[in-house]
Amino acid sequence: MCKNHHQHDAVTAAKISPEGASRRKFIQSSSAVGAGIMLSGLVPSLSSAAPVSSKPGQNIKSKGYAAFDESGVLKPWEFERRPVGDDDILIDIKFASICHSDIHQMKGHWAPQQYPQVPGHEIVGVVAAVGKNVTKFKVGDRAGVGCMVDGCSDCDTSENRGEQYSPKTKFTYGHPDERAPTGITQGGYATNIVVRDHFAVHIPEAISFEEAAPLLCAGVTTYSPILKFDLKPGDKVGVAGIGGLGHLAVKLAVAKGADVYAFTTTPDKVNDIKGFGAKEVIVLEDNDKLNEYRGQLDYMINTLPVAYDVAAYAAVVKPFGTYTQVGMPNGFTVSVNALALSASQVNFNASLIGDMQETQEIVDYCVEHNIRPEIQVIPASDVNKAWESVVNKTARYRYVIDSSTI
Amino acid sequence: MCKNHHQHDAVTAAKISPEGASRRKFIQSSSAVGAGIMLSGLVPSLSSAAPVSSKPGQNIKSKGYAAFDESGVLKPWEFERRPVGDDDILIDIKFASICHSDIHQMKGHWAPQQYPQVPGHEIVGVVAAVGKNVTKFKVGDRAGVGCMVDGCSDCDTSENRGEQYSPKTKFTYGHPDERAPTGITQGGYATNIVVRDHFAVHIPEAISFEEAAPLLCAGVTTYSPILKFDLKPGDKVGVAGIGGLGHLAVKLAVAKGADVYAFTTTPDKVNDIKGFGAKEVIVLEDNDKLNEYRGQLDYMINTLPVAYDVAAYAAVVKPFGTYTQVGMPNGFTVSVNALALSASQVNFNASLIGDMQETQEIVDYCVEHNIRPEIQVIPASDVNKAWESVVNKTARYRYVIDSSTI
Repeated sequence: MCKNHHQHDAVTAAKISPEGASRRKFIQSSSAVGAGIMLSGLVPSLSSAAPVSSKPGQNIKSKGYAAFDESGVLKPWEFERRPVGDDDILIDIKFASICHSDIHQMKGHWAPQQYPQVPGHEIVGVVAAVGKNVTKFKVGDRAGVGCMVDGCSDCDTSENRGEQYSPKTKFTYGHPDERAPTGITQGGYATNIVVRDHFAVHIPEAISFEEAAPLLCAGVTTYSPILKFDLKPGDKVGVAGIGGLGHLAVKLAVAKGADVYAFTTTPDKVNDIKGFGAKEVIVLEDNDKLNEYRGQLDYMINTLPVAYDVAAYAAVVKPFGTYTQVGMPNGFTVSVNALALSASQVNFNASLIGDMQETQEIVDYCVEHNIRPEIQVIPASDVNKAWESVVNKTARYRYVIDSSTI
Repeated sequence: MCKNHHQHDAVTAAKISPEGASRRKFIQSSSAVGAGIMLSGLVPSLSSAAPVSSKPGQNIKSKGYAAFDESGVLKPWEFERRPVGDDDILIDIKFASICHSDIHQMKGHWAPQQYPQVPGHEIVGVVAAVGKNVTKFKVGDRAGVGCMVDGCSDCDTSENRGEQYSPKTKFTYGHPDERAPTGITQGGYATNIVVRDHFAVHIPEAISFEEAAPLLCAGVTTYSPILKFDLKPGDKVGVAGIGGLGHLAVKLAVAKGADVYAFTTTPDKVNDIKGFGAKEVIVLEDNDKLNEYRGQLDYMINTLPVAYDVAAYAAVVKPFGTYTQVGMPNGFTVSVNALALSASQVNFNASLIGDMQETQEIVDYCVEHNIRPEIQVIPASDVNKAWESVVNKTARYRYVIDSSTI
């Protein structure tokens, strides 16, 4: 652990300028109409990175594992974070887990990146410092951080939801950030992190740090659309892609009382998935098998982080039902056979993580219902090997980096 | 007109075998899970064509304009249709209008085709013969045919809806048909057509044949999803792509009391579209203009028959609203930026024409509300030139072929 990083007293960084924006305004003014525009809004890219500005003597020293180019090979790296602002907290990271998104972004699958860049957006640890305005946390609290670390000044108002779709929101790594010494946000494969208090959640004592970490992206990403679907006991819910996200989707839907139909391409996951409570596990060698389930499910969530034929999967849902994409493939692009989608009469939508209220909810829900992700704790030095396992589908089901090994 | 084609007395063709299927069964058993499977179900292709079987002395002679290869160049062609079966009617065609789908299919954009093939699925004329079981029509009735010409034996039951999604349904041209002398159905750029009675609708005297024709595909294709959306007066409805389908969508939504926002890439259509009753006409040079309307509309229908960025358009709809694709591009494939779709929080679906009940409804609705398509009547010899105009966006707005010129 990195006690020497508690240089948090000099909390003099510029305050975030007040820019009020309701949720509706967020959505209406968001830059996300066209894909190109979208990318500049939600996906950090090299071209839009803020200039590097260093503030000697005030920054927080950190160590992490960073990618240095599009090979995505991670190596130890020492860097600095911005000082703890009035609304910020400093977290000494205990664990950070590995999300497929980390790999996509570091390898430039979504947009060109600035390097070095530290990935990681499933982060848990202990609060080591708080800014003068912070009341949500105190030093010593257990805290978690997901995909967002900063936003507009009215983040804290209770009616403010949907932070993930706000153009003001800064994502956890690679996001242009004029206050960051490296010019971009740096993620959680590291010893510590500075985040705005609103973007951290409380981690109850009843759940271990390492088991809480995957809830902060994988958990909320699957929980949020399931919440919106308003799943009822006995509903037939499909989950496609049983990896880090999918295995949590299965557990969450089961906890909500659904009959879960899990679709996987990996035969040796079947027993695991039944153990998670799935009513049925369907091993797909190709899309033909989907035909047997045509029009049968009340709802389906697809976690595949690769391109695939959306309409073939969506057709498993009953006519006029809903099918939600949460995995984000290269370029974020999925293709849809419009004719097949019409024949299914299914509504297709997509969902990005969840908002901060939902992020706290998923943690509390898992504590209350004794839901835990399946994890493998690894030392930081194994991270490149672990990434290979994620891509090769041999991860079972979430790797969690022990930050004391960084 | 083709009085010499009334050779309909020898009604001895095999009866359609009885195969009961409810609408739900249609949908559940439909072949449309994967695009490949879908194509074999809904889109006729060369490889799945039935063998040609000729029944000398019983067939109906016809003349039409056919494509002979993927160039899609149409030339006069004489061919035979199957005899009039017990449940069939023979229609002397008066007019047939030109749909962009005709062009796509003849040019092999959707699937390989059998040639010669006569396109045309917006067909009106006079009933010239009826099979012995037919009570719906009598000789001399005004009748219309859209995209479907045959189906399973229980088509006529009142609870049977959604014929367009049934694997038993035969589409109007290029569909494998064991009873057709050419092995495939042949469409309406012709002097006559034989269809099962269920798949023809009544054309009231109050509308001209030539104005009724475009309602049978363009009309019902836009009417069906608008019906399902349950549009209320004052709703803000978007229509993108103001061609044959889109101009009818504008008129229909206006008739339903909506404030219509029409999106076009063709500046010189603006005055026309305002004349159709649109509240606002937005000329799109690129997708940036869409941003100004982000999250504002209650519903949107997109008629573009080409590939485009779905999420950019869908974002114009309010969060949790619905966006419907009715145009069918090459390969039926549209691409969706899943990240942008997530940010819009809009549901995306697609709709294929409409069922037979809706087809009759759209005709009656347009008569009742005095809605007429904008048409240009042409002689059959101008059909290739007209196709060029459709592709080049200079059609205003539906070409209708005068069948007496064939």
